Amino acid sequence: MQQAIEYLEELHFDEDDLNYLKTLTGNDQKPLFEQGFLDYLRDLKFCCQVDAVPEGTPVFPYEPLVRVQGPILQAQIIETLLLTIINFQTLIATKAARVNIAARGEAVLEFGARRAQGVDGALTASRAAYIGGCAATSNVLAGRVWDIPVKGTHAHSWVMLFEDEREAFQTYARTMPNNCVFLVDTYDTLEGVRHAVEVGKWLRENGHELLGVRLDSGDLATLSIGARQILDEAGFENAAIVASNDLDEYLIRSLKDQGAKISVWGVGTRLATAYDQPALGGVYKLSAVLENGEWQPRLKLSEQSVKISNPGILQVRRFRRASGDKTGQLFADAIYDVQNPPRDWVIVDPTDSLLRWKVTPQMESDDLLVPVLQGGRRVGELPSIHEIRALAQRNMELLPDGIKRFENPHRYQSGLEENLHTRKEKMIFAARNS
Amino acid sequence: MQQAIEYLEELHFDEDDLNYLKTLTGNDQKPLFEQGFLDYLRDLKFCCQVDAVPEGTPVFPYEPLVRVQGPILQAQIIETLLLTIINFQTLIATKAARVNIAARGEAVLEFGARRAQGVDGALTASRAAYIGGCAATSNVLAGRVWDIPVKGTHAHSWVMLFEDEREAFQTYARTMPNNCVFLVDTYDTLEGVRHAVEVGKWLRENGHELLGVRLDSGDLATLSIGARQILDEAGFENAAIVASNDLDEYLIRSLKDQGAKISVWGVGTRLATAYDQPALGGVYKLSAVLENGEWQPRLKLSEQSVKISNPGILQVRRFRRASGDKTGQLFADAIYDVQNPPRDWVIVDPTDSLLRWKVTPQMESDDLLVPVLQGGRRVGELPSIHEIRALAQRNMELLPDGIKRFENPHRYQSGLEENLHTRKEKMIFAARNS
Repeated sequence: MQQAIEYLEELHFDEDDLNYLKTLTGNDQKPLFEQGFLDYLRDLKFCCQVDAVPEGTPVFPYEPLVRVQGPILQAQIIETLLLTIINFQTLIATKAARVNIAARGEAVLEFGARRAQGVDGALTASRAAYIGGCAATSNVLAGRVWDIPVKGTHAHSWVMLFEDEREAFQTYARTMPNNCVFLVDTYDTLEGVRHAVEVGKWLRENGHELLGVRLDSGDLATLSIGARQILDEAGFENAAIVASNDLDEYLIRSLKDQGAKISVWGVGTRLATAYDQPALGGVYKLSAVLENGEWQPRLKLSEQSVKISNPGILQVRRFRRASGDKTGQLFADAIYDVQNPPRDWVIVDPTDSLLRWKVTPQMESDDLLVPVLQGGRRVGELPSIHEIRALAQRNMELLPDGIKRFENPHRYQSGLEENLHTRKEKMIFAARNS
Repeated sequence: MQQAIEYLEELHFDEDDLNYLKTLTGNDQKPLFEQGFLDYLRDLKFCCQVDAVPEGTPVFPYEPLVRVQGPILQAQIIETLLLTIINFQTLIATKAARVNIAARGEAVLEFGARRAQGVDGALTASRAAYIGGCAATSNVLAGRVWDIPVKGTHAHSWVMLFEDEREAFQTYARTMPNNCVFLVDTYDTLEGVRHAVEVGKWLRENGHELLGVRLDSGDLATLSIGARQILDEAGFENAAIVASNDLDEYLIRSLKDQGAKISVWGVGTRLATAYDQPALGGVYKLSAVLENGEWQPRLKLSEQSVKISNPGILQVRRFRRASGDKTGQLFADAIYDVQNPPRDWVIVDPTDSLLRWKVTPQMESDDLLVPVLQGGRRVGELPSIHEIRALAQRNMELLPDGIKRFENPHRYQSGLEENLHTRKEKMIFAARNS
């Protein structure tokens, strides 16, 4: 949300924008836009009310993440902007959370910049990856822009620049003795570890410590076991073994299953692009129109039922098993119309309306959408990225374990509140029979 | 290359950058960087020589696309920047070329912004998609920034805002009579086409023309055939049928096989993210070091032979069957060391060194890498995006048809020139036995 809010607050059209829009023509080669419209854009000040789910909150299919209320032109003009920012960062935060689940508490470093989709694809991926649980990024610009810890190692070219690998490590150690993680796979990986150990001894004699080695190719399971043994035998039990090479949550789990001795995971391409599913299909739909002082729900039809939009002024209520202190495990989410809240909460499965979940009175609940902009200006201060990350981690712990599995995960109970479900059905039938 | 060149020319570290770098610390909580290094960065002016393959040129695996020659620190510091820009745009231009092959000359519109990876992921995808053959983008900002034609339609919300669809189309037609492509699938697609026809008649009576309709969901083959029939029967034979909905080259081909009556293809998510392969694995390697006035080739080893880097000052020579006017079909590419050009050209397959291709004296050839920056300043003017796109289209025509197939494409003949191949083998054996 941070970027979305910053863009919305600054939404405006300058003269260059308007001059460009003026050049656009229709099929008769006449201007596409009337001067009056361009004048309207010149004076436009964003004044919508925006409610959103706080960053760091897990969300589920069909749930509204952002609700925009205001003049239709303004609400419409921001569609692509909101979708681009929110779809992508939500996607990467999710992928990062999965990778961090696989790493079981060990540090995951985001190494994706060189394969990311554009400069800002890299930057915003670093941000979302940190929120999703990564410990640091190798993208120094992201470190500066987002206040994220930066971590990385020297390049292969550093080693190749010297006559031999030992000399390369030694020179590095003399230059940056407090940052020695040696990349050992330029020539022969285990030989590289031995060279790192030699320089590690020199570091120790000079009051410093070898922080670790990095493996970036080859059989990471076997090589990490070999590297661990060499390091331990030489007295470098605390030196980390960092591994990278097209890793993702499945490879990390597989390496752990094989007993790999890896303590820090460098995850690049497959995290920063969400390689196995590189787009999240969030949409932006009109759900109600104010007519004569009353909000009229609206609905978009589709041949595919799951693509029919939800009508009304939507909100999500999240129910927890009672604990008294907001630490109760999550039970279910209900998407409901704030103009028609129910007395008793029943939630209808969106893919099988015969399946319904009843909320009991003992449960606690919160509404997820909270105001972030009022009259186009922000409501209160934005949380820091570290607060967002901490919120995400707390929330991940409250999720039932079954839904965090990679294979056949249990589906979280989330759907339409029964009144809304019934109204939606009626509207669909009415529209199809009209 | 345009963005890469612009960034390189402006490469510098300002006080904010240096102040940030100053805050970074090592494991002893002392500064990571010496003041002398930061001072060096403050005064840094990029002075490398950069050679590159002109944008719009098809390239093949293992071929160098960019060659940077200069002080190691400068050449190293730009690695991530170059890779991020060039990997992504090359990927998207390639995907766009494939989609355009499937569309067989019909217009492809890039509609990807809302699912792209970040704001600049969207922007640069639009640029690369245009170069790869797309006719226009729906991203108006990309249109302005890159001078790309913009095309699009109104949103579903436009239709939902009105009491009924006919009124929505009619109002749109009154407002923008010279830009009427109606999105007809908000409620019932073919009914929507009939409403478009009604408004189309009004447009005609008022001196305008219905440009087309857009289908965005459902069975596009059946619906487009139905829509074509309705339009034709009403005398709108020239109205286009634009289709979109998670299209890619395979779906376009399948729709054509089914006789779909679609004339304009809106391709979004799967183009702007290269959905089925969202990262291109280009790398940046040190290949030679200047020692005592002589360039010494360097090589990075790997357990995987295809990941071993190529040594020397590399260049690519592209051979064409003779035509006398640069229109000869491509024959093969040879990666060679400019310090050791051969007398007779033999090219070694990179994955099977027993397979070799001989160049005959009748063939014509060009070297692909040409100077773009000298002493850090650009050599000549950059081509316009339209020139780049035209070059790409000419080049695509020169490629043998077999390599443009989607299934089991013939592999283009590209590999190491024989002298370079032999030297590389010797270096590998020497390094492994040392």
